Amino acid sequence: MTQQRSEETRATILDAAVRRFSISGYDAASVDDICAEAGVSKGAFYHHFETKQAVFLQLLEEWLQQLDADLQAALGEAPTVVDGLLGMAARTRGVFSAADGRLSILLEFWAQARKDPVVWERTIAPFRRNREAFAGIIRKGIEEGSLASVDADKAAQALMSIVVGIILQGVLDPEGARWDRVIQDTVGMLVQGMGRKAS
Amino acid sequence: MTQQRSEETRATILDAAVRRFSISGYDAASVDDICAEAGVSKGAFYHHFETKQAVFLQLLEEWLQQLDADLQAALGEAPTVVDGLLGMAARTRGVFSAADGRLSILLEFWAQARKDPVVWERTIAPFRRNREAFAGIIRKGIEEGSLASVDADKAAQALMSIVVGIILQGVLDPEGARWDRVIQDTVGMLVQGMGRKAS
Repeated sequence: MTQQRSEETRATILDAAVRRFSISGYDAASVDDICAEAGVSKGAFYHHFETKQAVFLQLLEEWLQQLDADLQAALGEAPTVVDGLLGMAARTRGVFSAADGRLSILLEFWAQARKDPVVWERTIAPFRRNREAFAGIIRKGIEEGSLASVDADKAAQALMSIVVGIILQGVLDPEGARWDRVIQDTVGMLVQGMGRKAS
Repeated sequence: MTQQRSEETRATILDAAVRRFSISGYDAASVDDICAEAGVSKGAFYHHFETKQAVFLQLLEEWLQQLDADLQAALGEAPTVVDGLLGMAARTRGVFSAADGRLSILLEFWAQARKDPVVWERTIAPFRRNREAFAGIIRKGIEEGSLASVDADKAAQALMSIVVGIILQGVLDPEGARWDRVIQDTVGMLVQGMGRKAS
Protein backbone atom coordinates (compact mmCIF):
# COMPACT_ATOMS: atom_id res chain seq x y z
CA MET A 1 0.00 0.00 0.00
CA THR A 2 1.54 3.34 -1.03
CA GLN A 3 1.60 6.24 1.41
CA GLN A 4 -0.99 8.12 -0.66
CA ARG A 5 -3.29 5.13 -0.97
CA SER A 6 -3.03 4.56 2.77
CA GLU A 7 -4.01 8.13 3.54
CA GLU A 8 -6.97 7.89 1.20
CA THR A 9 -8.17 4.75 2.98
CA ARG A 10 -7.84 6.48 6.32
CA ALA A 11 -9.89 9.45 5.08
CA THR A 12 -12.53 7.11 3.62
CA ILE A 13 -12.88 5.36 6.99
CA LEU A 14 -13.27 8.69 8.80
CA ASP A 15 -15.96 9.87 6.35
CA ALA A 16 -17.82 6.57 6.65
CA ALA A 17 -17.67 6.76 10.45
CA VAL A 18 -19.23 10.25 10.44
CA ARG A 19 -22.13 8.91 8.39
CA ARG A 20 -22.64 5.78 10.53
CA PHE A 21 -22.38 7.67 13.87
CA SER A 22 -24.80 10.26 12.54
CA ILE A 23 -27.39 7.71 11.39
CA SER A 24 -27.17 5.08 14.15
CA GLY A 25 -25.53 6.97 17.00
CA TYR A 26 -22.16 6.08 18.48
CA ASP A 27 -23.21 3.06 20.52
CA ALA A 28 -25.16 1.31 17.77
CA ALA A 29 -22.63 1.90 14.97
CA SER A 30 -20.22 -1.08 14.87
CA VAL A 31 -16.78 -1.37 13.28
CA ASP A 32 -18.44 -3.78 10.79
CA ASP A 33 -20.96 -1.07 9.84
CA ILE A 34 -18.19 1.48 9.32
CA CYS A 35 -16.14 -0.97 7.20
CA ALA A 36 -19.20 -1.81 5.07
CA GLU A 37 -19.99 1.89 4.61
CA ALA A 38 -16.37 2.64 3.70
CA GLY A 39 -15.96 -0.40 1.50
CA VAL A 40 -12.78 -1.48 3.32
CA SER A 41 -11.76 -4.67 5.10
CA LYS A 42 -11.55 -4.95 8.88
CA GLY A 43 -7.81 -5.46 8.38
CA ALA A 44 -7.57 -2.07 6.71
CA PHE A 45 -9.64 -0.52 9.51
CA TYR A 46 -7.42 -1.88 12.27
CA HIS A 47 -4.31 -0.89 10.35
CA HIS A 48 -5.40 2.72 10.84
CA PHE A 49 -7.35 2.71 14.11
CA GLU A 50 -7.11 0.60 17.24
CA THR A 51 -10.77 0.91 18.19
CA LYS A 52 -14.04 2.56 17.25
CA GLN A 53 -13.33 5.06 19.99
CA ALA A 54 -10.03 6.04 18.35
CA VAL A 55 -11.95 6.96 15.17
CA PHE A 56 -14.42 8.95 17.23
CA LEU A 57 -11.67 10.89 19.04
CA GLN A 58 -9.84 11.56 15.77
CA LEU A 59 -13.03 13.08 14.31
CA LEU A 60 -13.45 15.26 17.37
CA GLU A 61 -9.84 16.38 17.19
CA GLU A 62 -10.06 17.34 13.50
CA TRP A 63 -13.31 19.20 14.02
CA LEU A 64 -11.91 21.25 16.89
CA GLN A 65 -8.72 22.02 14.97
CA GLN A 66 -10.82 23.29 12.06
CA LEU A 67 -12.83 25.52 14.40
CA ASP A 68 -9.63 26.89 15.93
CA ALA A 69 -8.18 27.59 12.48
CA ASP A 70 -11.39 29.37 11.38
CA LEU A 71 -11.33 31.49 14.52
CA GLN A 72 -7.70 32.46 14.08
CA ALA A 73 -8.26 33.28 10.39
CA ALA A 74 -11.24 35.53 11.20
CA LEU A 75 -9.24 37.37 13.87
CA GLY A 76 -6.16 37.68 11.68
CA GLU A 77 -8.09 39.42 8.91
CA ALA A 78 -9.96 41.91 11.09
CA PRO A 79 -8.72 45.45 11.91
CA THR A 80 -10.05 45.29 15.49
CA VAL A 81 -11.04 42.58 17.98
CA VAL A 82 -14.70 43.63 17.75
CA ASP A 83 -14.62 43.21 13.97
CA GLY A 84 -12.83 39.90 14.47
CA LEU A 85 -15.50 38.57 16.82
CA LEU A 86 -18.29 39.63 14.48
CA GLY A 87 -16.40 38.18 11.51
CA MET A 88 -15.96 34.91 13.36
CA ALA A 89 -19.70 34.81 14.00
CA ALA A 90 -20.37 35.45 10.32
CA ARG A 91 -18.14 32.54 9.31
CA THR A 92 -20.22 30.02 11.23
CA ARG A 93 -22.40 29.60 8.16
CA GLY A 94 -19.99 26.89 7.05
CA VAL A 95 -20.36 25.07 10.35
CA PHE A 96 -24.14 24.91 10.11
CA SER A 97 -24.33 24.02 6.45
CA ALA A 98 -21.63 21.34 6.65
CA ALA A 99 -23.11 18.52 4.64
CA ASP A 100 -20.85 15.88 6.10
CA GLY A 101 -22.85 15.53 9.27
CA ARG A 102 -20.08 16.47 11.69
CA LEU A 103 -22.35 18.81 13.60
CA SER A 104 -24.94 16.08 14.03
CA ILE A 105 -22.47 13.77 15.77
CA LEU A 106 -21.41 16.46 18.20
CA LEU A 107 -24.30 15.56 20.48
CA GLU A 108 -23.01 11.98 20.42
CA PHE A 109 -19.62 13.23 21.59
CA TRP A 110 -21.26 15.15 24.39
CA ALA A 111 -23.51 12.30 25.49
CA GLN A 112 -20.48 9.96 25.47
CA ALA A 113 -18.43 12.47 27.45
CA ARG A 114 -20.71 12.04 30.44
CA LYS A 115 -20.05 8.29 30.52
CA ASP A 116 -16.49 7.94 29.25
CA PRO A 117 -13.59 9.68 31.06
CA VAL A 118 -11.35 9.56 27.95
CA VAL A 119 -13.96 11.30 25.79
CA TRP A 120 -14.65 13.68 28.67
CA GLU A 121 -11.00 14.69 28.80
CA ARG A 122 -10.93 15.33 25.06
CA THR A 123 -14.30 17.15 25.02
CA ILE A 124 -14.11 19.31 28.11
CA ALA A 125 -10.46 20.32 27.85
CA PRO A 126 -11.17 22.11 24.54
CA PHE A 127 -14.11 23.97 26.15
CA ARG A 128 -11.75 25.30 28.77
CA ARG A 129 -9.02 26.00 26.21
CA ASN A 130 -11.44 27.95 24.00
CA ARG A 131 -12.63 29.94 26.97
CA GLU A 132 -9.02 30.92 27.68
CA ALA A 133 -8.49 31.87 24.03
CA PHE A 134 -11.64 34.04 24.05
CA ALA A 135 -10.46 35.74 27.25
CA GLY A 136 -7.13 36.58 25.61
CA ILE A 137 -8.92 38.02 22.58
CA ILE A 138 -11.17 40.16 24.76
CA ARG A 139 -8.21 41.44 26.76
CA LYS A 140 -6.61 42.47 23.46
CA GLY A 141 -9.84 44.31 22.54
CA ILE A 142 -9.75 46.18 25.83
CA GLU A 143 -6.08 47.11 25.29
CA GLU A 144 -6.64 48.34 21.75
CA GLY A 145 -9.73 50.23 22.95
CA SER A 146 -12.42 48.57 20.81
CA LEU A 147 -14.03 47.07 23.93
CA ALA A 148 -14.79 48.73 27.25
CA SER A 149 -13.02 47.51 30.36
CA VAL A 150 -15.14 44.41 31.07
CA ASP A 151 -14.18 41.33 33.10
CA ALA A 152 -12.50 39.35 30.31
CA ASP A 153 -13.05 35.95 31.95
CA LYS A 154 -16.77 36.54 32.43
CA ALA A 155 -17.12 37.90 28.92
CA ALA A 156 -15.24 34.89 27.52
CA GLN A 157 -17.52 32.52 29.41
CA ALA A 158 -20.53 34.38 28.01
CA LEU A 159 -19.18 33.99 24.46
CA MET A 160 -18.54 30.27 24.99
CA SER A 161 -22.05 29.79 26.36
CA ILE A 162 -23.60 31.46 23.35
CA VAL A 163 -21.57 29.39 20.90
CA VAL A 164 -22.31 26.12 22.71
CA GLY A 165 -26.01 26.94 23.13
CA ILE A 166 -26.52 27.84 19.50
CA ILE A 167 -24.63 24.81 18.22
CA LEU A 168 -26.79 22.57 20.41
CA GLN A 169 -29.99 24.14 19.10
CA GLY A 170 -28.63 23.89 15.56
CA VAL A 171 -28.08 20.16 16.06
CA LEU A 172 -31.49 19.52 17.58
CA ASP A 173 -33.60 21.84 15.47
CA PRO A 174 -31.77 22.56 12.20
CA GLU A 175 -34.90 24.09 10.64
CA GLY A 176 -35.85 26.13 13.73
CA ALA A 177 -33.86 29.23 12.76
CA ARG A 178 -31.06 30.48 10.51
CA TRP A 179 -28.53 29.55 13.18
CA ASP A 180 -25.60 31.32 11.52
CA ARG A 181 -27.59 34.55 11.70
CA VAL A 182 -28.58 33.83 15.29
CA ILE A 183 -24.88 33.59 16.21
CA GLN A 184 -24.19 36.89 14.45
CA ASP A 185 -27.12 38.67 16.13
CA THR A 186 -26.35 37.27 19.56
CA VAL A 187 -22.61 37.92 19.47
CA GLY A 188 -23.44 41.43 18.23
CA MET A 189 -25.77 42.01 21.17
CA LEU A 190 -23.22 40.66 23.64
CA VAL A 191 -20.40 42.77 22.18
CA GLN A 192 -22.72 45.74 22.62
CA GLY A 193 -23.16 44.67 26.26
CA MET A 194 -19.36 44.50 26.62
CA GLY A 195 -19.30 48.20 25.87
CA ARG A 196 -18.42 48.03 22.19
CA LYS A 197 -16.91 51.26 20.97
CA ALA A 198 -17.23 52.55 17.43
CA SER A 199 -14.42 51.08 15.33
CA MET B 1 -54.22 -0.14 46.33
CA THR B 2 -55.40 3.15 47.77
CA GLN B 3 -55.15 6.35 45.72
CA GLN B 4 -52.42 7.71 47.98
CA ARG B 5 -50.43 4.50 47.91
CA SER B 6 -50.70 4.43 44.13
CA GLU B 7 -49.37 7.98 43.79
CA GLU B 8 -46.46 7.17 46.08
CA THR B 9 -45.57 4.17 43.92
CA ARG B 10 -45.69 6.32 40.80
CA ALA B 11 -43.38 8.91 42.39
CA THR B 12 -41.00 6.16 43.55
CA ILE B 13 -40.80 4.80 39.98
CA LEU B 14 -40.07 8.27 38.59
CA ASP B 15 -37.30 8.87 41.16
CA ALA B 16 -35.76 5.48 40.44
CA ALA B 17 -35.88 6.14 36.69
CA VAL B 18 -33.98 9.43 37.11
CA ARG B 19 -31.24 7.57 38.98
CA ARG B 20 -31.03 4.68 36.46
CA PHE B 21 -31.07 6.98 33.40
CA SER B 22 -28.42 9.13 35.03
CA ILE B 23 -26.11 6.21 35.84
CA SER B 24 -26.57 3.98 32.78
CA GLY B 25 -28.01 6.34 30.18
CA TYR B 26 -31.44 5.96 28.63
CA ASP B 27 -30.67 3.11 26.24
CA ALA B 28 -28.91 0.88 28.75
CA ALA B 29 -31.39 1.37 31.61
CA SER B 30 -34.09 -1.32 31.38
CA VAL B 31 -37.54 -1.48 32.92
CA ASP B 32 -36.15 -4.32 35.10
CA ASP B 33 -33.39 -2.02 36.35
CA ILE B 34 -35.88 0.70 37.18
CA CYS B 35 -38.17 -1.76 39.00
CA ALA B 36 -35.23 -3.13 41.01
CA GLU B 37 -34.08 0.39 41.91
CA ALA B 38 -37.62 1.39 42.92
CA GLY B 39 -38.33 -1.88 44.73
CA VAL B 40 -41.59 -2.40 42.82
CA SER B 41 -42.91 -5.24 40.66
CA LYS B 42 -43.13 -5.04 36.89
CA GLY B 43 -46.91 -5.25 37.31
CA ALA B 44 -46.83 -2.08 39.40
CA PHE B 45 -44.60 -0.40 36.80
CA TYR B 46 -46.91 -1.20 33.89
CA HIS B 47 -49.93 -0.16 35.96
CA HIS B 48 -48.49 3.36 35.89
CA PHE B 49 -46.52 3.57 32.64
CA GLU B 50 -46.96 1.89 29.27
CA THR B 51 -43.28 1.96 28.36
CA LYS B 52 -39.87 3.14 29.47
CA GLN B 53 -40.30 6.02 27.06
CA ALA B 54 -43.50 7.11 28.82
CA VAL B 55 -41.52 7.46 32.08
CA PHE B 56 -38.86 9.43 30.25
CA LEU B 57 -41.40 11.83 28.70
CA GLN B 58 -43.15 12.29 32.05
CA LEU B 59 -39.85 13.30 33.66
CA LEU B 60 -39.19 15.76 30.87
CA GLU B 61 -42.68 17.23 31.20
CA GLU B 62 -42.37 17.71 34.98
CA TRP B 63 -38.94 19.31 34.65
CA LEU B 64 -40.11 21.80 32.04
CA GLN B 65 -43.22 22.67 34.07
CA GLN B 66 -41.02 23.37 37.08
CA LEU B 67 -38.76 25.63 35.00
CA ASP B 68 -41.81 27.51 33.66
CA ALA B 69 -43.19 27.96 37.16
CA ASP B 70 -39.82 29.27 38.43
CA LEU B 71 -39.64 31.72 35.55
CA GLN B 72 -43.15 33.01 36.11
CA ALA B 73 -42.53 33.37 39.86
CA ALA B 74 -39.33 35.36 39.28
CA LEU B 75 -41.09 37.69 36.86
CA GLY B 76 -44.15 38.08 39.07
CA GLU B 77 -42.07 39.29 42.01
CA ALA B 78 -39.94 41.80 40.12
CA PRO B 79 -40.79 45.50 39.70
CA THR B 80 -39.46 45.64 36.11
CA VAL B 81 -38.74 43.15 33.33
CA VAL B 82 -35.00 43.77 33.66
CA ASP B 83 -35.16 42.96 37.38
CA GLY B 84 -37.28 39.92 36.51
CA LEU B 85 -34.74 38.58 34.02
CA LEU B 86 -31.89 39.09 36.47
CA GLY B 87 -33.96 37.51 39.25
CA MET B 88 -34.70 34.54 37.02
CA ALA B 89 -30.98 34.12 36.38
CA ALA B 90 -30.28 34.28 40.12
CA ARG B 91 -32.80 31.49 40.78
CA THR B 92 -30.97 29.00 38.61
CA ARG B 93 -28.88 28.02 41.59
CA GLY B 94 -31.55 25.47 42.41
CA VAL B 95 -31.34 24.00 38.92
CA PHE B 96 -27.60 23.42 39.14
CA SER B 97 -27.53 22.10 42.67
CA ALA B 98 -30.51 19.75 42.17
CA ALA B 99 -29.33 16.57 43.84
CA ASP B 100 -31.88 14.38 42.12
CA GLY B 101 -29.90 14.16 38.91
CA ARG B 102 -32.52 15.67 36.63
CA LEU B 103 -29.98 17.95 35.01
CA SER B 104 -27.69 15.04 34.24
CA ILE B 105 -30.38 13.22 32.27
CA LEU B 106 -31.13 16.28 30.16
CA LEU B 107 -28.34 15.34 27.79
CA GLU B 108 -29.99 11.94 27.44
CA PHE B 109 -33.23 13.65 26.44
CA TRP B 110 -31.39 15.72 23.87
CA ALA B 111 -29.44 12.80 22.43
CA GLN B 112 -32.70 10.81 22.20
CA ALA B 113 -34.49 13.71 20.51
CA ARG B 114 -32.22 13.39 17.50
CA LYS B 115 -33.25 9.77 16.98
CA ASP B 116 -36.83 9.63 18.22
CA PRO B 117 -39.54 11.85 16.65
CA VAL B 118 -41.80 11.58 19.73
CA VAL B 119 -39.04 12.81 22.06
CA TRP B 120 -38.10 15.43 19.47
CA GLU B 121 -41.62 16.80 19.47
CA ARG B 122 -41.65 17.00 23.27
CA THR B 123 -38.11 18.46 23.50
CA ILE B 124 -38.08 20.98 20.68
CA ALA B 125 -41.60 22.32 21.08
CA PRO B 126 -40.73 23.64 24.58
CA PHE B 127 -37.60 25.34 23.15
CA ARG B 128 -39.79 27.20 20.70
CA ARG B 129 -42.45 27.89 23.35
CA ASN B 130 -39.86 29.33 25.75
CA ARG B 131 -38.44 31.49 23.00
CA GLU B 132 -41.93 32.92 22.43
CA ALA B 133 -42.37 33.51 26.16
CA PHE B 134 -39.03 35.32 26.35
CA ALA B 135 -40.00 37.49 23.37
CA GLY B 136 -43.24 38.49 25.13
CA ILE B 137 -41.32 39.37 28.28
CA ILE B 138 -38.84 41.48 26.33
CA ARG B 139 -41.65 43.30 24.51
CA LYS B 140 -43.14 44.10 27.91
CA GLY B 141 -39.75 45.49 29.01
CA ILE B 142 -39.63 47.72 25.94
CA GLU B 143 -43.18 48.96 26.60
CA GLU B 144 -42.50 49.73 30.24
CA GLY B 145 -39.23 51.41 29.26
CA SER B 146 -36.76 49.24 31.19
CA LEU B 147 -35.29 47.94 27.89
CA ALA B 148 -34.36 49.89 24.78
CA SER B 149 -36.20 49.20 21.58
CA VAL B 150 -34.41 46.00 20.52
CA ASP B 151 -35.67 43.28 18.17
CA ALA B 152 -37.57 41.17 20.73
CA ASP B 153 -37.36 37.94 18.71
CA LYS B 154 -33.61 38.19 18.29
CA ALA B 155 -33.14 39.12 21.94
CA ALA B 156 -35.32 36.17 23.00
CA GLN B 157 -33.29 33.80 20.84
CA ALA B 158 -30.13 35.19 22.42
CA LEU B 159 -31.52 34.55 25.91
CA MET B 160 -32.54 30.99 24.98
CA SER B 161 -29.09 30.31 23.56
CA ILE B 162 -27.39 31.46 26.73
CA VAL B 163 -29.64 29.35 28.93
CA VAL B 164 -29.23 26.25 26.76
CA GLY B 165 -25.46 26.72 26.41
CA ILE B 166 -24.88 27.15 30.11
CA ILE B 167 -27.08 24.21 31.07
CA LEU B 168 -25.15 22.02 28.63
CA GLN B 169 -21.82 23.10 30.09
CA GLY B 170 -23.23 22.59 33.58
CA VAL B 171 -24.16 19.02 32.68
CA LEU B 172 -20.82 18.20 31.07
CA ASP B 173 -18.51 20.05 33.42
CA PRO B 174 -20.25 20.58 36.78
CA GLU B 175 -16.99 21.59 38.47
CA GLY B 176 -15.82 23.86 35.63
CA ALA B 177 -17.48 27.01 36.94
CA ARG B 178 -20.12 28.28 39.34
CA TRP B 179 -22.73 27.93 36.58
CA ASP B 180 -25.49 29.79 38.44
CA ARG B 181 -23.16 32.80 38.62
CA VAL B 182 -22.23 32.40 34.96
CA ILE B 183 -25.93 32.63 34.04
CA GLN B 184 -26.29 35.77 36.16
CA ASP B 185 -23.20 37.43 34.67
CA THR B 186 -24.07 36.51 31.10
CA VAL B 187 -27.73 37.52 31.29
CA GLY B 188 -26.56 40.77 32.90
CA MET B 189 -24.16 41.42 30.04
CA LEU B 190 -26.80 40.63 27.43
CA VAL B 191 -29.41 42.82 29.13
CA GLN B 192 -26.79 45.58 29.01
CA GLY B 193 -26.45 44.88 25.28
CA MET B 194 -30.22 45.16 24.90
CA GLY B 195 -29.90 48.74 26.05
CA ARG B 196 -30.81 48.23 29.68
CA LYS B 197 -31.95 51.44 31.28
CA ALA B 198 -31.52 52.27 34.95
CA SER B 199 -34.47 50.88 36.90
